[in-house]
Amino acid sequence: MAARPKLHYPNGRGRMESVRWVLAAAGVEFDEEFLETKEQLHKLQDGNHLLFQQVPMVEIDGMKLVQTRSILHYIAEKHQLFGKDLKERTLIDMYVEGTLDLLELLIMHPFLKPDDQQKEVVNMAQKAIIRYFPVFEKILRGHGQNFLVGNQLSLADVILLQTILALEEKIPNILSAFPFLQEYTVKLSNFPTIKRFLEPGSKKKPPPDEIYVRTVYNIFMP
Amino acid sequence: MAARPKLHYPNGRGRMESVRWVLAAAGVEFDEEFLETKEQLHKLQDGNHLLFQQVPMVEIDGMKLVQTRSILHYIAEKHQLFGKDLKERTLIDMYVEGTLDLLELLIMHPFLKPDDQQKEVVNMAQKAIIRYFPVFEKILRGHGQNFLVGNQLSLADVILLQTILALEEKIPNILSAFPFLQEYTVKLSNFPTIKRFLEPGSKKKPPPDEIYVRTVYNIFMP
Repeated sequence: MAARPKLHYPNGRGRMESVRWVLAAAGVEFDEEFLETKEQLHKLQDGNHLLFQQVPMVEIDGMKLVQTRSILHYIAEKHQLFGKDLKERTLIDMYVEGTLDLLELLIMHPFLKPDDQQKEVVNMAQKAIIRYFPVFEKILRGHGQNFLVGNQLSLADVILLQTILALEEKIPNILSAFPFLQEYTVKLSNFPTIKRFLEPGSKKKPPPDEIYVRTVYNIFMP
Repeated sequence: MAARPKLHYPNGRGRMESVRWVLAAAGVEFDEEFLETKEQLHKLQDGNHLLFQQVPMVEIDGMKLVQTRSILHYIAEKHQLFGKDLKERTLIDMYVEGTLDLLELLIMHPFLKPDDQQKEVVNMAQKAIIRYFPVFEKILRGHGQNFLVGNQLSLADVILLQTILALEEKIPNILSAFPFLQEYTVKLSNFPTIKRFLEPGSKKKPPPDEIYVRTVYNIFMP
């Protein structure tokens, strides 16, 4: 039996949460080593465990993968979450890239100055409602299926669901104008592996709080 | 004969220049439709030609591809620039992602305030010299080949060469501590398709100037 993947990152969402999501969706059990101090980061760096001196890093299949997208792509490819041909793969890739642009705003949000945080929630809501959600609503309305591409779960669904649920934490009615996305969110949340990840006691991380923000500053600020 | 790809973007480097590089490296001839006004952008948006209302957009093989990385991945996959198996693909993906993080600093540089531009050159130089170039120098020294992965040209080489040459325009001696990268840069610049792209009259764009910056503001600012 292959070793379980081991994730190296602080104990919070950040750029690693998408990796946790896709592993969970693929039904892969994993371990985590939480970074808590600058010394732990330096130890990883000095041991040449981080290709570009940064986390996220995931030990998997004898490799030490870095760069969020590369990690996601590898796991998706390995677990048939990246389409059945180049055309499906390219659609999935575009949907993931668009959604990651939106998710990036959520990832950076807790590190904004308090005054800017509320403004940024408005910006995120606008981006979601005007730019991103209409695209996915139209796709779902158009083909009547439960998944975005190829009638089966893909990386695009996983990242979109992660992003929708995280946005809903801040803006509960964010999907009010998108009935197909509402239904999609409910159905996808009941996909067996995802349902387990959404239940208490899973490795899904809570919304970022003061402690997470302080920990990140302590580890990564020079 | 398939139609030539058509690139939609302002007449400058920005996020499209990597796409021009990889098409050129793959030996693919392409056409460009330069965005010059806000009205042209609105026309593309209103005609549903831009999935997320943004450029770069590339018409290719009957698709309208968006999101820089997705476009690069598609072209690389189609033209055997993405490795021979998942392991090579993942290495290429990681090298590309790291290099794109560095390239992003160059892309944003002309839009910084004048006072910040010089500071940012120092930051870019440090990132390149401390974080990124040592990784590639070590790889090249280690295997003694002319390409980063699998002893043949890949997307990783194309994006790295693009980034090195653009950095050298700002910081001529940026490779002085990296003899293997120096040799790699010379050899790669003589790869036939790349050599043609580096010659006058190609579709390679010049460094961003005042006119480019003003055009971008005119098109994209609300």
